[in-house]
Amino acid sequence: MKRTTRKKPQKTFHQQGVARIRRRKAGLQHLTWKSVELEQLNPLLQRQFIVGHDLMIARVLLKKGCVVPEHRHVNEQVTYILEGALKFRIDGREIIVRAGEVLTIPPNMPHEAEALVDTVDLDVFNPPRADWINKDDSYLRGSR
Amino acid sequence: MKRTTRKKPQKTFHQQGVARIRRRKAGLQHLTWKSVELEQLNPLLQRQFIVGHDLMIARVLLKKGCVVPEHRHVNEQVTYILEGALKFRIDGREIIVRAGEVLTIPPNMPHEAEALVDTVDLDVFNPPRADWINKDDSYLRGSR
Repeated sequence: MKRTTRKKPQKTFHQQGVARIRRRKAGLQHLTWKSVELEQLNPLLQRQFIVGHDLMIARVLLKKGCVVPEHRHVNEQVTYILEGALKFRIDGREIIVRAGEVLTIPPNMPHEAEALVDTVDLDVFNPPRADWINKDDSYLRGSR
Repeated sequence: MKRTTRKKPQKTFHQQGVARIRRRKAGLQHLTWKSVELEQLNPLLQRQFIVGHDLMIARVLLKKGCVVPEHRHVNEQVTYILEGALKFRIDGREIIVRAGEVLTIPPNMPHEAEALVDTVDLDVFNPPRADWINKDDSYLRGSR
């Protein structure tokens, strides 16, 4: 591609390469998941996320048998299973959420999840998970 | 399943049948998209949505040639194209968002979208779109 002079800077639009984690509130962004950093949190768990203004959207890839230990957070969570199935322990019950299903988890509700098969999980949070952005999420980084 | 007496009411959990639009802030919900009302807004446009606490997640199905006229809203929007491609006119440019790509649209930014092919679009909003919940969205209900 030719380089032109005095080209308008494109700070937040159509970024290529590894997407950086944005600590400031983001504006318009066009990203492809292929360019977003894929974190290997433990042998069974990978994660990517994109941070907007007050929204975070994440793709979480769990291998069969992956356990996300019980935790809670102030962030509201909506989980949409794109492939596979997760068994949640939440609100005193077990709920299996399969491909094509959604679980809305209110703020501060403790939950645990286990992948029954290899799973692609889309998670949405409001506000963005500061612990994920700051890598202060050791509960996910075990070797279970 | 046996019925037991004095069982805890299950107001918002694992609802079956057509999901009702929730005007109050929702708690834990387990839903399948198959059970969520599919609105036919115009001949080329269908929509489903689930409302959480401060989050709304929507599946928008656009046939090739469908145009969503320019509009703006206070709600932050994150668009993730699951299948197909949308051409946005936004922030003075055209951006084609294809399957596997994400567009984060800040609050109050005007945007228009056109489906280049049949498209499955996942949209997330914060806060939920009151105009969609209240069916006060005539800009989507034209016959274009």
